[in-house]
Amino acid sequence: MDVRIQKTFEALFALEDLRGIFRESLPTGFDEGEGERFREKIGEIKKILAELEAGTGTPRPIKIAGTLDIRCREEQFINIQPIQAAGRLTTEARKALISYGDGYSTCDFCRKPFRLDKITKPGFADFHADLAKFLNMDQARVVPGARRGFQAVASSLVEKGDPVIVSALAHYTEFLAVEEAGGVVREVPLNEKNIATAEATAQKIEDVRRECGKLPALVMIDHFDYQFANEHEVSGIAKVAHEYDIPFLYNGAYSVGIMPVDGKRIGADFVVGSGHKSMASVAPSGVLATTDEMAPRVLRTTEMAGDVTQRRFGIKEVELMGCTLMGGTLLSMMASFPAVKERTLHWGEEIGKSNHFISTLLKINGSRVLSEYPRKHTLSKVDTTGSFDTVAKTHKRRGFYFSDELSSRGIVGEFAGATRAWKLNTYGLSWKKIGYLADAFTEIAGKYGLKVS
Amino acid sequence: MDVRIQKTFEALFALEDLRGIFRESLPTGFDEGEGERFREKIGEIKKILAELEAGTGTPRPIKIAGTLDIRCREEQFINIQPIQAAGRLTTEARKALISYGDGYSTCDFCRKPFRLDKITKPGFADFHADLAKFLNMDQARVVPGARRGFQAVASSLVEKGDPVIVSALAHYTEFLAVEEAGGVVREVPLNEKNIATAEATAQKIEDVRRECGKLPALVMIDHFDYQFANEHEVSGIAKVAHEYDIPFLYNGAYSVGIMPVDGKRIGADFVVGSGHKSMASVAPSGVLATTDEMAPRVLRTTEMAGDVTQRRFGIKEVELMGCTLMGGTLLSMMASFPAVKERTLHWGEEIGKSNHFISTLLKINGSRVLSEYPRKHTLSKVDTTGSFDTVAKTHKRRGFYFSDELSSRGIVGEFAGATRAWKLNTYGLSWKKIGYLADAFTEIAGKYGLKVS
Repeated sequence: MDVRIQKTFEALFALEDLRGIFRESLPTGFDEGEGERFREKIGEIKKILAELEAGTGTPRPIKIAGTLDIRCREEQFINIQPIQAAGRLTTEARKALISYGDGYSTCDFCRKPFRLDKITKPGFADFHADLAKFLNMDQARVVPGARRGFQAVASSLVEKGDPVIVSALAHYTEFLAVEEAGGVVREVPLNEKNIATAEATAQKIEDVRRECGKLPALVMIDHFDYQFANEHEVSGIAKVAHEYDIPFLYNGAYSVGIMPVDGKRIGADFVVGSGHKSMASVAPSGVLATTDEMAPRVLRTTEMAGDVTQRRFGIKEVELMGCTLMGGTLLSMMASFPAVKERTLHWGEEIGKSNHFISTLLKINGSRVLSEYPRKHTLSKVDTTGSFDTVAKTHKRRGFYFSDELSSRGIVGEFAGATRAWKLNTYGLSWKKIGYLADAFTEIAGKYGLKVS
Repeated sequence: MDVRIQKTFEALFALEDLRGIFRESLPTGFDEGEGERFREKIGEIKKILAELEAGTGTPRPIKIAGTLDIRCREEQFINIQPIQAAGRLTTEARKALISYGDGYSTCDFCRKPFRLDKITKPGFADFHADLAKFLNMDQARVVPGARRGFQAVASSLVEKGDPVIVSALAHYTEFLAVEEAGGVVREVPLNEKNIATAEATAQKIEDVRRECGKLPALVMIDHFDYQFANEHEVSGIAKVAHEYDIPFLYNGAYSVGIMPVDGKRIGADFVVGSGHKSMASVAPSGVLATTDEMAPRVLRTTEMAGDVTQRRFGIKEVELMGCTLMGGTLLSMMASFPAVKERTLHWGEEIGKSNHFISTLLKINGSRVLSEYPRKHTLSKVDTTGSFDTVAKTHKRRGFYFSDELSSRGIVGEFAGATRAWKLNTYGLSWKKIGYLADAFTEIAGKYGLKVS
């Protein structure tokens, strides 16, 4: 590791130590001991900074809380891990987190009616309105992950035994949301290109009606699935669902925050997005947006009353369990939001980079892409059974030789040891990094005598 | 504000800018532009550091992402806000957050069976075992807030129309959890000291059985309530619940993480705690612990199968929606945990400080404490209608004069403008700060001619 990366962490941590002295001291200022510690810490930081500048010095052993290593994959490497790419924090989110990490940091100015999305200082109310506008929906709430959005919707609309339509590539959290609500998933089969189509959905709805004697309670489809990141026919499926008067949930875990999403145009009754997957935010975070028509069902407020005290908490939303992201999670979403909005406008270029890399990979003979191609997404499933895996068969490190080769070139995030079917994500990598990445793959192929056309 | 606090944030933020350069660069190092920016940023940090050391310089206007102010209440003030005290991050948690803020930062080394609590690097599996041990329960999971623990339990045990026993001082999230599960809350009335007793609970169970024709599905009681932080008879209530074979949920939102909690000794089937309220962690976070007997019900794994693909996700826990805290939230809990364990051993001293402050307040004639007294907790509800509110009646700033007086002494966190019944929390304040706080109240009383005995 570049010692300067280590020194950057050392400087940040020493500044947190210093900050701790302010936290301990009285509002009137430092006492003698605190003053002394302050001066010592300043001296330490100066020394670290000098080393950071010079790129010298020995790394001090750092174990956070005595056990945790620093995590510097994003500083040290090019990270192609499939689900981490679009959840990396922006610099502004990291600053917000430094400032707002403490527990209930959102609650300094909580006033009547005492609900997170109504607080105006900081501007959480405005942020919620902005989120709804960003997705072109009427209302939005933040939730602890997209899965909690699925849960809120399923729990509101699905009764025991109700069928719910999902795709044959549905994420497992959709299964859980339906199961938790007492429903049963019914999958839309894929076409020969691994796409869930409107036609297949219409057919499935008919099948369900015939077999179950009732219509599905909900249709919930991923715009891009977690396996291939193929694009599914969400607009067409929304239309089909509405022909049967079935609400449609658009799962935007792999789209909201990286590409433009227009909920009304798609015809979504619900748009769900993931903060930590696609909005450069701390986990668990996400968004659930809906229409004014559906809000009274899914965002209904409590009607429970205490039988002894007659207490009521009328403003609290049942499915959200009241307030949701009361600290650093929300602040990271907010701080990343301007950059997130902006980056969705450059989705075309991200696709271009994705295709550039995949096309280079395909030049290595025997390599295949299992996702639809040309790519419409930055997450791809590739199959290198015919290329890199042929080397693994006889290599003493097996598939790990490939990880070794990548990491020696500063590339991480592939599934260690996997050389057959595996996934990667190029989201957010600059052209410079894409070029480097493509060259690295070509180089490794060359090194092991794989043919490159 | 002490300009050094501002400069500390400036230095932290500038280091995050610097860190951003590493993130953009290739694994092979900086290009010319990056090197130039690096040197410029180092220069800037040196300048800030010099100002920080000297306590000079003009604060640079900081707006995170163009909109957010820095939050420095904990550095600048003594914060007595009722729910924030025990959620303040430890210095180690702040370091963990700097290191692990990025979205899915927990997932670097996720391997089969692909579940957060099974990951060994970092040691999430060990942490889960430690959490269970800490609470003397068999199993523990992290959850996005105590409320999501209540929800998981209620959703598992409560059927439509089932009564659930809560206290007349139950937190609103317990109401919501029961409502979301389709149940109905039935409150245990308080005795004349505002305590929920075992006797009253037994009576309530009998009443419910008579009126509803069935036993309650669950008894869920706060050890210390959110209003008065009075101590309720949790052990006795657990015993009563078990006499009727009703599961007992111990709500430790105001105890787990600040005082020793022995789940088995209490007789709890479930122990729920809050990370952001009492475990020095980022919101939303918390813990749900249970027994081996109850785990198969509440931590049951999915049985749903896709009808087309036959897919099953057998290891995933339905009520948790799979993985829960996949990033900075969990890491903050872990980094604070050694300090949190240690601090529970000093609960007696925290009580001592709480009583010291309250006894000083009571010396200001007309002041009362609405919570039980002597205090058994650091959160207290006080009534200053007979003291500070008498001044507010004629002051042109009304009750805000009191907030003004406190903030001019570097104290924040009271409910601004409130001079009748209001809450405060002394948790974690050193004796030095407690003395300062008590003196400030006495001084303000003196300034306005209130009699102090």
